[in-house]
Amino acid sequence: MNFIAQLNTAWRSRDSLLCVGLDPDPGRFPAHLAGQDDAIFQFCSAIVDATADLVCSYKPQIAYFAAHRAEDQLERLIAHIHQRHPGLPVILDAKRGDIGSTAQMYAVEAFERFGADAVTVNPYLGRDSIEPFLAYHDRGVILLCRTSNPGGSDLQSLRVEGGQGSEQLFERVARLVADEWNEHGQCALVVGATFPGEIARVRQIVGDLPLLVPGIGAQGGDIEATVKAGRSAAGTGLMINSSRAILYAGTGVGGGFAEAARQAARETRDEINRWRVAA
Amino acid sequence: MNFIAQLNTAWRSRDSLLCVGLDPDPGRFPAHLAGQDDAIFQFCSAIVDATADLVCSYKPQIAYFAAHRAEDQLERLIAHIHQRHPGLPVILDAKRGDIGSTAQMYAVEAFERFGADAVTVNPYLGRDSIEPFLAYHDRGVILLCRTSNPGGSDLQSLRVEGGQGSEQLFERVARLVADEWNEHGQCALVVGATFPGEIARVRQIVGDLPLLVPGIGAQGGDIEATVKAGRSAAGTGLMINSSRAILYAGTGVGGGFAEAARQAARETRDEINRWRVAA
Repeated sequence: MNFIAQLNTAWRSRDSLLCVGLDPDPGRFPAHLAGQDDAIFQFCSAIVDATADLVCSYKPQIAYFAAHRAEDQLERLIAHIHQRHPGLPVILDAKRGDIGSTAQMYAVEAFERFGADAVTVNPYLGRDSIEPFLAYHDRGVILLCRTSNPGGSDLQSLRVEGGQGSEQLFERVARLVADEWNEHGQCALVVGATFPGEIARVRQIVGDLPLLVPGIGAQGGDIEATVKAGRSAAGTGLMINSSRAILYAGTGVGGGFAEAARQAARETRDEINRWRVAA
Repeated sequence: MNFIAQLNTAWRSRDSLLCVGLDPDPGRFPAHLAGQDDAIFQFCSAIVDATADLVCSYKPQIAYFAAHRAEDQLERLIAHIHQRHPGLPVILDAKRGDIGSTAQMYAVEAFERFGADAVTVNPYLGRDSIEPFLAYHDRGVILLCRTSNPGGSDLQSLRVEGGQGSEQLFERVARLVADEWNEHGQCALVVGATFPGEIARVRQIVGDLPLLVPGIGAQGGDIEATVKAGRSAAGTGLMINSSRAILYAGTGVGGGFAEAARQAARETRDEINRWRVAA
């Protein structure tokens, strides 16, 4: 089953558009994990096992593992998700972007070493930098389009000439991906929740292409506006990511951290679902 | 000593603008390294020790280590370069690009975990995605500007409006970095050797900012055209990267692979030096 089919199944079976971002910060782990060699794996896998019936995907962020020399724990974590929760897609958030043989090595890293079902990539180097990822037809390739940070505007909001007349760079990226790079139906886009008007613009350009939307919760994006702007005709089409607000919902509560994360995930999923049906 | 000062010293003391890219491919290693647990470290460190008086920097490409679960060997390799060849700058080619706390984790990965003197980063996410790297004032931050691959044109050559009138996206990136992001004098740019006219355009925009130039050798870039287009007023300003043409110069010669790499490095350095002085 390819990534898009997995995602469709997860949206339906979990009745959820929520993606939980796994950004482990050992400084915020419960005290009983302190000093354990595999604390990152233990923390993340407990969060996963407590929330797997409430989410459409998980998105481990590789930088949080790499900064702690914990690539081995990331391998274990993704294998754990696949084994315990078969079919639930795992997106490796790596935002890789390089050319030719190097891009090929990054594709091996994401798909073969880590076993991710999809990976985030940066479009700045153009189509041939994406090809080695696209060559894995059963995997998802999620391109940065409009990011949720303030500086995202520095390049992404520049007006560019040519093609469909004047449009912003992120609109051009959306169009390139939807019209040209998505030949095998495996692409998706990252569009931040902090700009609902731009989510709506991207949705208009790309039809039913899935959108990965970071920026709700800690970054201040609004759920109602995000869902209304980004839902597809079928009332799906979104992976709305929340990381810290779920992972650390129970900071200070000790053994109950996973239960607190479950509660936060349930509330977020339900809040998202309030706005899925056109009203 | 900060990265730019290190680079200036290396340009002068080695009389060289050559950067050797360390892209280890175990399938091309000499037979006597086959099956050894630290073959990647052994191969790369032998290349380094055979060429260190001929180069201005080394550029390990992290993807080649990550695809082989060899982050530990990359740590050892960079430590080895620092210990045996003090002062010679090491650029971690990682092309990272992410926001806020994630960018911070990538800066920890590059500068603290791996001990790199500089790192390559992607500008698509804008200034705040670069800030966590810039916060290490003694380290170099090398931004992608015009990459050497054909698809680089997909976004980088788009004409953008505003600012200094119509210009191409890579020119805007060059201007942003030189005029705004380089407050602490630690930035450089990546500009591919396959487009000498564009190297000249970038040099015109950025004054003496160092340029990292991949794409000679295997990718077909011309050394004479690159040096003439990119040299600074002082006849330096360039880190001209060659990877495969040097690493695998001795493929098939067994124990002499490092000597063959040395010979190739010397020839490339000398060819670069033929064109450094304005003629």
